[in-house]
Amino acid sequence: MTRFALTLEFDGTPFFGLQRQGHGPSVQQSVEEAADRIVGHPVTLHAAGRTDAGVHALAMRCHFDSDTALTPFRLSEALNAHLRPDPIAVTHCEIVSEEWHARFSCIGRAYEYRVLNRRAPPTLELGRVWHVPQELDTDAMHRAAQALVGKHDFTTFRSVQCQAASPVKTLDRLAVRREGEHVLVEAAARSFLHHQVRSMVGCLALVGMGRWREEQVAEALAARDRQKLGFNAPPDGLYFVKAIYPQEE
Amino acid sequence: MTRFALTLEFDGTPFFGLQRQGHGPSVQQSVEEAADRIVGHPVTLHAAGRTDAGVHALAMRCHFDSDTALTPFRLSEALNAHLRPDPIAVTHCEIVSEEWHARFSCIGRAYEYRVLNRRAPPTLELGRVWHVPQELDTDAMHRAAQALVGKHDFTTFRSVQCQAASPVKTLDRLAVRREGEHVLVEAAARSFLHHQVRSMVGCLALVGMGRWREEQVAEALAARDRQKLGFNAPPDGLYFVKAIYPQEE
Repeated sequence: MTRFALTLEFDGTPFFGLQRQGHGPSVQQSVEEAADRIVGHPVTLHAAGRTDAGVHALAMRCHFDSDTALTPFRLSEALNAHLRPDPIAVTHCEIVSEEWHARFSCIGRAYEYRVLNRRAPPTLELGRVWHVPQELDTDAMHRAAQALVGKHDFTTFRSVQCQAASPVKTLDRLAVRREGEHVLVEAAARSFLHHQVRSMVGCLALVGMGRWREEQVAEALAARDRQKLGFNAPPDGLYFVKAIYPQEE
Repeated sequence: MTRFALTLEFDGTPFFGLQRQGHGPSVQQSVEEAADRIVGHPVTLHAAGRTDAGVHALAMRCHFDSDTALTPFRLSEALNAHLRPDPIAVTHCEIVSEEWHARFSCIGRAYEYRVLNRRAPPTLELGRVWHVPQELDTDAMHRAAQALVGKHDFTTFRSVQCQAASPVKTLDRLAVRREGEHVLVEAAARSFLHHQVRSMVGCLALVGMGRWREEQVAEALAARDRQKLGFNAPPDGLYFVKAIYPQEE
């Protein structure tokens, strides 16, 4: 068996998430079905992260095992042909050792959250950004965000459906900046709780709007109480941008 | 009567073009119908340029006259509310003098053409770029493009449906550059012939692929013959980016 590592880019809008779901289309199902048809046997896709319905990926790392004799280039070309018209693309494919695991070998994950911050609604970016018409104070958002960086119990920022064994995570980076009409939030950690990025962005947006004092983010974290959460930012603006592996650092 | 100048951003995908068409939806029809409902009388929208089906705009300048007492801010807010769910947004609105005309006062127009140049098909940019899987030589494209800059008879690069009185136009700028996986072509002129930008980009892409010698672009121009045209690049990658007016220079 050969282990093929894939890098996927996808528009999350039509999917119920990356992971296979009983009740609707998923990125995993589309890729597995395309691969099955090409290699002639069922394959199982493993991914660096799970993404929710509507969440996008610029570079999701995945792998599957197959006895196909296809080269990585031919396999990626065939996958892209069979994936049409689903908005999923294989942007890179290579053979890796069987010790390399897209999920378990991954030591860092990075997300970007994109806000369109202007009065007018999105047109070309519809479904690709969260539209916030009130002007956001990005300096205040960035300052407030620093209270979340480090090792903390993130119970406040965790979905009730979260299956992680512990609510304690180490957030390596949470940075807010403005680029013209856009406000961009970068988040990096070894791993995240379910809905953690969207929950953090939701609270930071309340700070940016002046509806929360900057200190309320730290207070919400310290409360370890989901009821203290402002709200989840919508999935439209969230992108999985990078998975980090030890050999590649 | 008050003259309101609007700046529009729109996703051209669902429209048969900016201009009102007998056979399908247009940006003009959507904006006029929204404005009619707000101001209570029929209005006529005048735009700096015409765009074809599927062509986008980041900042199309337009105007209409109305006796409404609404401020520009209230009018733009109302237009954006009434335009939903059409992917058209009013990003700016102001009162201008009755001498100012979106089309006839405009002394310069700029377009950008976006190519996604990689093997993998577009996902998040589907309908927003032209996908060219063969690697493009952007230096060769840029050099070849310079033969088109200046005052020329652009018959070769003109649609058979073009209604302009003369095929002679002065092209001020045609620049090709790479940004990662993207190849961007900027075009600026006082005005353009129908399909001129897409025709020029189509020929430059043939140069970039090595299917045309660089000199063939100049030869096609000199021939003044539509039959010498390579092909039209698709509308998906074309954006109207700027209209220039004397007072604003």
